[in-house]
Amino acid sequence: MLLALCSSLLLALAAHATGAGWQEEIPPKFVFTQLQEDRSVQRFVANQSHSDHFKLLEQDGDFLLVGARNIVYNLSLHNLTEERRLEWPANPKDIHMCQLKGKTEMECQNYIRVLARKSNDTILVCGTNAFKPMCRQYKELANGTYLQTSEKPGEGLCPYDPNHNSTAIFAGPVKDRTAPSFVNSLHHEDYVYFFFRETAVEYINCGKIIYSRVARVCTKDKGGPHKFQNRWTSFLKARLNCSVPGEFPFYFNEIQSTSHIVEGVYNGGQRAQLVYAVFTTPSNSLSGSAVCAFRLEDILKTFDGHFKGQEDINANWLPVPVSKVPEPRPGQCVNDSRTLPEMTVNFIKDHSLMDQAVPAFWGQPVVLHTSFNYRFTYIAVDAEIETTNKNKYDVLFIGTDKGRVLKAFNAGSATASGGVVPVILEEMVVFPQGWAITNLLVHHSHRTARLIVVSHHEVASVPLHACETMAQSCAQCVALQDPYCAWDLKARVCTSSKSRMWQNTNFVQNVEEGWDKRCPGGNPYGTGSPPQRQPHHQIPTRHDGGGRGLGGTQGSGSLSVLDPGHPGAAGALPGTSKEFSHIYTAETLAIGVTTSIVTALVIGFISGYIFSRRCRNDEVDSPYDESHYLEQRGGAGGRLAMEPSLINHTEGFLPSNPTNKPINLVLNVPPKNGNGKNANSSADNKPIQKVKKIYL
Amino acid sequence: MLLALCSSLLLALAAHATGAGWQEEIPPKFVFTQLQEDRSVQRFVANQSHSDHFKLLEQDGDFLLVGARNIVYNLSLHNLTEERRLEWPANPKDIHMCQLKGKTEMECQNYIRVLARKSNDTILVCGTNAFKPMCRQYKELANGTYLQTSEKPGEGLCPYDPNHNSTAIFAGPVKDRTAPSFVNSLHHEDYVYFFFRETAVEYINCGKIIYSRVARVCTKDKGGPHKFQNRWTSFLKARLNCSVPGEFPFYFNEIQSTSHIVEGVYNGGQRAQLVYAVFTTPSNSLSGSAVCAFRLEDILKTFDGHFKGQEDINANWLPVPVSKVPEPRPGQCVNDSRTLPEMTVNFIKDHSLMDQAVPAFWGQPVVLHTSFNYRFTYIAVDAEIETTNKNKYDVLFIGTDKGRVLKAFNAGSATASGGVVPVILEEMVVFPQGWAITNLLVHHSHRTARLIVVSHHEVASVPLHACETMAQSCAQCVALQDPYCAWDLKARVCTSSKSRMWQNTNFVQNVEEGWDKRCPGGNPYGTGSPPQRQPHHQIPTRHDGGGRGLGGTQGSGSLSVLDPGHPGAAGALPGTSKEFSHIYTAETLAIGVTTSIVTALVIGFISGYIFSRRCRNDEVDSPYDESHYLEQRGGAGGRLAMEPSLINHTEGFLPSNPTNKPINLVLNVPPKNGNGKNANSSADNKPIQKVKKIYL
Repeated sequence: MLLALCSSLLLALAAHATGAGWQEEIPPKFVFTQLQEDRSVQRFVANQSHSDHFKLLEQDGDFLLVGARNIVYNLSLHNLTEERRLEWPANPKDIHMCQLKGKTEMECQNYIRVLARKSNDTILVCGTNAFKPMCRQYKELANGTYLQTSEKPGEGLCPYDPNHNSTAIFAGPVKDRTAPSFVNSLHHEDYVYFFFRETAVEYINCGKIIYSRVARVCTKDKGGPHKFQNRWTSFLKARLNCSVPGEFPFYFNEIQSTSHIVEGVYNGGQRAQLVYAVFTTPSNSLSGSAVCAFRLEDILKTFDGHFKGQEDINANWLPVPVSKVPEPRPGQCVNDSRTLPEMTVNFIKDHSLMDQAVPAFWGQPVVLHTSFNYRFTYIAVDAEIETTNKNKYDVLFIGTDKGRVLKAFNAGSATASGGVVPVILEEMVVFPQGWAITNLLVHHSHRTARLIVVSHHEVASVPLHACETMAQSCAQCVALQDPYCAWDLKARVCTSSKSRMWQNTNFVQNVEEGWDKRCPGGNPYGTGSPPQRQPHHQIPTRHDGGGRGLGGTQGSGSLSVLDPGHPGAAGALPGTSKEFSHIYTAETLAIGVTTSIVTALVIGFISGYIFSRRCRNDEVDSPYDESHYLEQRGGAGGRLAMEPSLINHTEGFLPSNPTNKPINLVLNVPPKNGNGKNANSSADNKPIQKVKKIYL
Repeated sequence: MLLALCSSLLLALAAHATGAGWQEEIPPKFVFTQLQEDRSVQRFVANQSHSDHFKLLEQDGDFLLVGARNIVYNLSLHNLTEERRLEWPANPKDIHMCQLKGKTEMECQNYIRVLARKSNDTILVCGTNAFKPMCRQYKELANGTYLQTSEKPGEGLCPYDPNHNSTAIFAGPVKDRTAPSFVNSLHHEDYVYFFFRETAVEYINCGKIIYSRVARVCTKDKGGPHKFQNRWTSFLKARLNCSVPGEFPFYFNEIQSTSHIVEGVYNGGQRAQLVYAVFTTPSNSLSGSAVCAFRLEDILKTFDGHFKGQEDINANWLPVPVSKVPEPRPGQCVNDSRTLPEMTVNFIKDHSLMDQAVPAFWGQPVVLHTSFNYRFTYIAVDAEIETTNKNKYDVLFIGTDKGRVLKAFNAGSATASGGVVPVILEEMVVFPQGWAITNLLVHHSHRTARLIVVSHHEVASVPLHACETMAQSCAQCVALQDPYCAWDLKARVCTSSKSRMWQNTNFVQNVEEGWDKRCPGGNPYGTGSPPQRQPHHQIPTRHDGGGRGLGGTQGSGSLSVLDPGHPGAAGALPGTSKEFSHIYTAETLAIGVTTSIVTALVIGFISGYIFSRRCRNDEVDSPYDESHYLEQRGGAGGRLAMEPSLINHTEGFLPSNPTNKPINLVLNVPPKNGNGKNANSSADNKPIQKVKKIYL
């Protein structure tokens, strides 16, 4: 009987392992397959009978505005309970038309996708409205209810289908010039930065390929003189280089998401402003994901470098000689762009692309994942977490397309030599295998520090750390390597840095090595010497999982070892990798096995289903599509709000307000032309302008 | 105790699975982890105390000439026993010099790398001779011994180091123009075809990349007129396109090996001559391997198409207009190439590259493998295996860098619609994990049909099939889908087609579907209906392993389920995938688990070691390097023999012999120039000529 159990176990594992992972990568130190048991996860599921296609619209202090099906929810960030709601079902007439077009009941609903605050008590909300996008203005009343003040068509401001990116829909007819996919925009000082991916024009003679870009526009850009009045005069773009170095570098070409701008101290004292970004390989490719960091300084330097140009249609794209660049240099911010000489404005029309790519800070990805089990979709950063030795680390939370969230940091970021020593602290199974993570948000309050995790079907809130639960001894606590956790020698507890009391010498922590001699017993896993440091990761040279053997692994006999994604973890070095385990009886084990088998079946089915869907509509149904939409985020230097200002096809630019710098932008949701073709077909100056819905 | 066993099992599996595989691919139907038990494997290990760096030199009827350390072995193909040997240790003076240079004892030996038959009883043999390559001519005496008749320096004909490809060694100083890596040459009718990979000149403006090529030279090419006398007048080359189709095709760019030319009937009656080739992704990349087939007709068509050219150094590579191509068209075979007009010969100097790539037959790879556990290294094809329904299939044997050999065929190749329905019949663990397979040879004799598998350390001989052992019932036999196996209704045995007696209606076989209604019980795995056919494989759409669930898998409880590489297999459809299993007791299981753990440790260590080596000397130490050497093979239309003819730097071409067309070639082992630089730096007309050691 037990033999049969074993063999079932084997089969379950074998089936599980079809989604195996972290081969030749840093395995996560802890895998939480039963998150609920280990952490106080809060969940918000509005209605289990249908998918809400949740979309994070805005954080408003301790509240979260979430777009859903026919509703905007206002959730408390403390416990994810619904505080208020704004209901807006689709127009019955539009539902009727939608159904006449053969759409399903699911599609003929109003999914709220856009929310922009126009003033303290006025918001603009847009929804899919049964495939006929609409926008409404609401006034917030003192009693917490909303009063609708106006309604206008929302085409171009909101997608038609909650599953789809409108860019992708419109791009349909324009086969050879795919529309760019915007993943984020950030406002910083004089500029707005756009992060997107698009078909690489400079590569077109070598084949069709997607590159990732950062673009920059001056906030003061009022358009050019005369015929250029509807064009940005300062739009420049450059390639983002996220690659594994080598004689033949391996590029992660497709950006999926970025963090906000993070300011920190790196490489032993160097101040820098970084943007972390998630990249993947193309969908018709071997599966790989990476996180790279880009320094704002490097981005600016690239925009100060050579332009890229093509002598004629059959020439190579080469750096433009300085002598051929007009004065004033195109792309600079000026007080009134409408007075710029025509030559400067004309130059930028054909030369918006910079010659050099923006290099990744540290010259390589910070985190890599190269197996088929999942891809990265989203990133949020909790910046500058100070440790007891005064080093500060950026903690990265990385969402995947399979319900998992990684918590990681670069243990080499503080060293003077500067380097990449990735530590994957935790992997949390937040959602079922088939659910992609579409948004992440780190939320600190006086009460708690939590990560908001959003999928189409559910919003979850997970504590950023679980120091107390995860370690019961000094050595265990230090071995976590978690920047949030230190051992309190007096209280004898693994505590978190809520009040940043690390100054006190009573706290023991070593996130770089996971070992401290002040802990009794030193290394918690018995080798008696500090565990080896993880080597720098490079795909062809690293071999951590396989090369380590089983030597010091603690046989926990627990089901969390059963984690499907990370067989390598069990083979990791003693002290550097350990599953977070509970002790189970044989009975529990048997139940677990059965559960595993059933889960595998269900997951298999769901994956199969999703795959088949993805196959049918590869571009449009991609789980990453959600991230295409222009996110509304606070940059370091100001606040970037969406302000569609409704449809106005003639006006060019609204003057910016220099005092509080609100930049009102709607990008990436081009209006449908009369002929149904996409007006916004490339992320260069012209097509974006053509949208005529960008107001600065 | 048994619980502990289970948990150990889990750990062993988890560790094993770090080398997991076949994710979203066709899993092999049978995995032989204990090959010795299931098949009569014969092995030749000359000396266990050191590595022999075996190299297959020549098949001579039922004998095999194998180069080794200080010895050429003549092995009987029947049982791999040594029949005769030719001993040639390194010269003591050269050993002394080698040691003075700080080389190891291992390196200061004579590894025999080249053997060419000059006449019936005369052979030319070259060895590394303690880093001072030498060649010797031997006369075969009637008593089976060899008489040395001459000795000459072998630089340029033989590498210095058995681990290294001489090309790679010489390429060192020439960083920007890496030397091409030749993987095979085939003689067919009027042409010799070369298969190699090289830095793509047409891509240089988009970055550095390796492409795979086929090149063609007329056997009658005598060089050009006057100043072109040392140049081939007919050298043309084209890219080989082995890619997964899609809007953004995924290219397998690096060819590793090819089969000989195979003639068969495909797509419901279409006669074609195919060359199967193994491709991989670059080493600094996500790991992927593929087998593509190329039709000779398509290769010829590509060479009849547009040339590729560049107007100037900064222009794109574009098709050359027909009007600019001189007459007679360059690259055609003429009776005396020395009388060609200078314009024709001059044109080919700058336009040896064709504009179009050679498409893969069936438009996609025949077999794919995309996980880190191994890469393909070598391919051998047993062509036109006839089945009972008169269809004929090419059975592919694919070697890997991890001791495994796959046996596969395209079950869609005979259908009129033409398509790719790969079936991986078997995966055999022939050698330990760390050993790359460097040669494969299919050998049919009246007695037996065997596959010779060569690694640096051992030569093995495995039967091509094991019908009798693998199936005990009609249904099981048909379910094998093995073109070699059919159920004999009278003798009630799963028999192989030794004598091609399929004509008799007594034999049941269905390699396309693995099911026949004449078998009692129909489907052997209990579903009662024919198993589903494998879908066409495309990386982004297929999801076989995960999507299928565990439904009909037979719980065999056997250790072969433990196979590290193929967890997906256990999750495959009932009837289409099954591990080849033995029944073990719990005790055996425990032993097996312990063995697994120890094996994992050892394999981990070896892999780590190899990885570290590879890392140090990536290009040079690659396990694929062995395949760079020009292989000596019989083409369909003649025999291609190596004929170094020893060093002669002045002479150009030897006239070919039109009667038996022996083409004597030495390529890829350029002479060391006085300055130590590589004379052979690109696979275009000029550098190859520069070698001055190619005689036609």
